[in-house]
Amino acid sequence: MRVGGLSDATGASVATIKYYLREGLLHPGVATAVNQSEYDDGHVRRIRLIRALADLGRLGIADIARVLEAVDDPQVQLHDAFGIAQDAMAMVVDRQHGDAERRAAVLAEVDRFVKRHRLHIRDDAAVRSMLADALMFLDQFGWGTDSSILDGLVPGLVEQAAAELAAVPEPADRAVQMEYSVVGTVAFETATNAIRRMALEDASWRRFGPGRRARPRTRVP
Amino acid sequence: MRVGGLSDATGASVATIKYYLREGLLHPGVATAVNQSEYDDGHVRRIRLIRALADLGRLGIADIARVLEAVDDPQVQLHDAFGIAQDAMAMVVDRQHGDAERRAAVLAEVDRFVKRHRLHIRDDAAVRSMLADALMFLDQFGWGTDSSILDGLVPGLVEQAAAELAAVPEPADRAVQMEYSVVGTVAFETATNAIRRMALEDASWRRFGPGRRARPRTRVP
Repeated sequence: MRVGGLSDATGASVATIKYYLREGLLHPGVATAVNQSEYDDGHVRRIRLIRALADLGRLGIADIARVLEAVDDPQVQLHDAFGIAQDAMAMVVDRQHGDAERRAAVLAEVDRFVKRHRLHIRDDAAVRSMLADALMFLDQFGWGTDSSILDGLVPGLVEQAAAELAAVPEPADRAVQMEYSVVGTVAFETATNAIRRMALEDASWRRFGPGRRARPRTRVP
Repeated sequence: MRVGGLSDATGASVATIKYYLREGLLHPGVATAVNQSEYDDGHVRRIRLIRALADLGRLGIADIARVLEAVDDPQVQLHDAFGIAQDAMAMVVDRQHGDAERRAAVLAEVDRFVKRHRLHIRDDAAVRSMLADALMFLDQFGWGTDSSILDGLVPGLVEQAAAELAAVPEPADRAVQMEYSVVGTVAFETATNAIRRMALEDASWRRFGPGRRARPRTRVP
């Protein structure tokens, strides 16, 4: 297909596609004439991947480039590539504030959380800082930094993660496997956040709204 | 305290504080001399709230203003204010692409999900679109749009939401209650996402990494 067809298939404007090409996020098509190239399904998938990272993962171009580099490098083992992609996708919060001592204490608490739940994650995984940031904000508003308030979340999230990874086809094209992992990370995260917020609105309805006098919630059978 | 003390207490620069004052996100201090005002703990809390929304919730100034308006208006019932704040915090994804018919089908699937789990959420809650967006991205990458793949997440998230709301003090100052709700939404969400990604790295370790030949995961006792 030409660039117009690629635009139709992905919803990305021609200008956006040319930007991705210029930035090296998208590999060039096969030149068929002066100023004319032919694109294929690989380009369609790549644009969808970029948009998932930008729209759902809210990543900037530089972070998207880092994720794609890990996706594309066949020398990087799949599990290592997954870690690189995860770090690029980790949320960066302004950490100028807060003294180093307090931050070290919160990171030690994160370490206890990881050990308690027997999670195998790298010592330098960016996600440790992400959890520490959240605990530091919660502490500022009177929730404290005890990570045990989060323990109830773990079984459901672990089960869901295992189900997501089990869906990654194997053996399969490595690029397809990485796409599954990367898109899964951001799209299932958006879904999880949406459900979490639904659960909060439901809980608010029961605690502060019209459901105040309703029967207490029972588990869905 | 003066503006310098407010800066020390919150980690926000004096320039940032002046910007919040100019934008009306922060109420003025009590003028004590020309070009000098006195600030109190209410200002400290408000700045922390703004930073939680900006840093963890990644909201822009306009959305922060909408959240604060709901927080501050005593005419708005707590549960309704919660809904307004939730909508302002909902993720907005570019929806230019995708035909209306497919989108309507996915929103109907979201409706079935909400009914199946007996969640009390408004018919026009922004979070419905958020879940629909996630399902549409998942569909593009071969996961389909069947929301039952998310069912396993619900019990843990519902339990956690109830625990979060139960921690909101009552009776209490309405502003404090709203702060709990709003900060809880973004900070616990960041924590949840961090744990979700830890669970994914752990699952990757087991499926593709050194844990491939390890014994299967057992539930933490």
